Amino acid sequence: MQLIDGNQIAADIVAELKSQVSALSGRKPCIALVRVGEDPASVSYVKKKEKTAAEIGIESRIILPPATTTQAELEKLIDDLNADPTVDGILVQSPLPKHLDEPAAFRRLAAHKDVDGFHTLNIGKVAQEDDTGFVACTPAGIMELLARSGTDLKGKHVVVLGRSLIVGKPVALLALQKKAGANGTVTICHSGTKDVAAITRQADVLIAAIGRAEFVTADMVKPGAVIIDVGINRVADPSKKTGYRLTGDVHFPTVSPLASKITPVPGGVGPMTVAMLMKNTVKAHRQSAA
Amino acid sequence: MQLIDGNQIAADIVAELKSQVSALSGRKPCIALVRVGEDPASVSYVKKKEKTAAEIGIESRIILPPATTTQAELEKLIDDLNADPTVDGILVQSPLPKHLDEPAAFRRLAAHKDVDGFHTLNIGKVAQEDDTGFVACTPAGIMELLARSGTDLKGKHVVVLGRSLIVGKPVALLALQKKAGANGTVTICHSGTKDVAAITRQADVLIAAIGRAEFVTADMVKPGAVIIDVGINRVADPSKKTGYRLTGDVHFPTVSPLASKITPVPGGVGPMTVAMLMKNTVKAHRQSAA
Repeated sequence: MQLIDGNQIAADIVAELKSQVSALSGRKPCIALVRVGEDPASVSYVKKKEKTAAEIGIESRIILPPATTTQAELEKLIDDLNADPTVDGILVQSPLPKHLDEPAAFRRLAAHKDVDGFHTLNIGKVAQEDDTGFVACTPAGIMELLARSGTDLKGKHVVVLGRSLIVGKPVALLALQKKAGANGTVTICHSGTKDVAAITRQADVLIAAIGRAEFVTADMVKPGAVIIDVGINRVADPSKKTGYRLTGDVHFPTVSPLASKITPVPGGVGPMTVAMLMKNTVKAHRQSAA
Repeated sequence: MQLIDGNQIAADIVAELKSQVSALSGRKPCIALVRVGEDPASVSYVKKKEKTAAEIGIESRIILPPATTTQAELEKLIDDLNADPTVDGILVQSPLPKHLDEPAAFRRLAAHKDVDGFHTLNIGKVAQEDDTGFVACTPAGIMELLARSGTDLKGKHVVVLGRSLIVGKPVALLALQKKAGANGTVTICHSGTKDVAAITRQADVLIAAIGRAEFVTADMVKPGAVIIDVGINRVADPSKKTGYRLTGDVHFPTVSPLASKITPVPGGVGPMTVAMLMKNTVKAHRQSAA
């Protein structure tokens, strides 16, 4: 069994981006990081993004409107960033305070600066196999983990657990694309699937993104399968100081001995998302210069 | 075995639309039908669309640029139609003459008038389950055939043969949606799928859109399955005056006795596409009035 090391792969991507950015003459790529209010998790996520951007040589413009910001003020801010030629990518950190309309705010982003890949046009481009768009960071990170761990999906049966807009559907569309590394046969299961184990047992590659702690057990897995665990769930654990431990959607202790390759949680898909956000930002900069 | 009668279902939809349109006060819906050149199949398709529009009470504006039209002239024409408030939907008949860039022409259409549902934004809306867009006519027609023949996909395993942009992928995304009638578990197979029969035999609903005459044979089908045959293939047949007969992607004589419901070819999916185009046009009119 090979552990797919998301920390190492993310570090490799960051190093590649750093080398690409240092070779640029002229203006460096710039990402605007918009965080409304002081949600503690958001504070920490934005800090991590700022740090990684700095490491690569991407300029980050941190914008911190107060929690009392109105929808109109937020949209005005987004419009200004859309129009600013020195900003390549815009990230509006989720979740926004409850009084704001988050989908409307995300829709407001110019598609060509939507480095989070949530814009309708960008998901449409994934479906249409148009490489000029931005792929959402988690599905893009999953594809990198597969490629860089030597997993070619061609002729493989890929089973995706979960049909969310930001993971399940885009990763299914990516696995299905007619391009090198992809070309999988793809099944998408979800909460309404009957006899899910009968389907997951057919998976050569199983991508678990269902948000249920340790849902995938050994009896659901074919020996030799590649397992990508997207879940990050808190499970009560009195032995921990915090009172909980983090676990994925896969029961690692019993599934990992069966797998040919598997991502751990944490340290698998998680570290990839910030790296892919930066990769999208460098791409946005390249496209804006073109 | 129940035959799913596409001609009857399409006629029902046309009658419903006629009744909706006749109840409208004010300007009637209008579709612009753009046919470049004199391709014989295109002449006949556009005629059929014009005839159905007239039957419903939809105005059609027939625009017939010569085969020598340049890309710039075609795009100017599309821009004018995009800007014309009396035009609700625009259909540019495919195929365009070889010297024209068809994808670029289609991308030029305003998404809110793209009643063919090929615009990136409209396929993105299908993925995001946003009902304000237009679903491409063939996948929309398939969903109507299923719904109106009493086939609820909830808890069913739907296997789609073919991953095309205009049939396979959108119908897979529709079958997967979290809404009444859908909620299927979906597998998408294609030319690169290994042991496709092992997968199709699991299908409660099998949608064949692979473009290979009589590809689906009895050994590939589970008894009781619902079969939707999207294929229209010409097979040499010296007994016919034309020298060929039309056949689907399913070997009807051996598969139909196994199926609980099945669409014939012709007379199944085919007649639905024009009806769905008209349904999209009436929707575009409703949304432009809103």
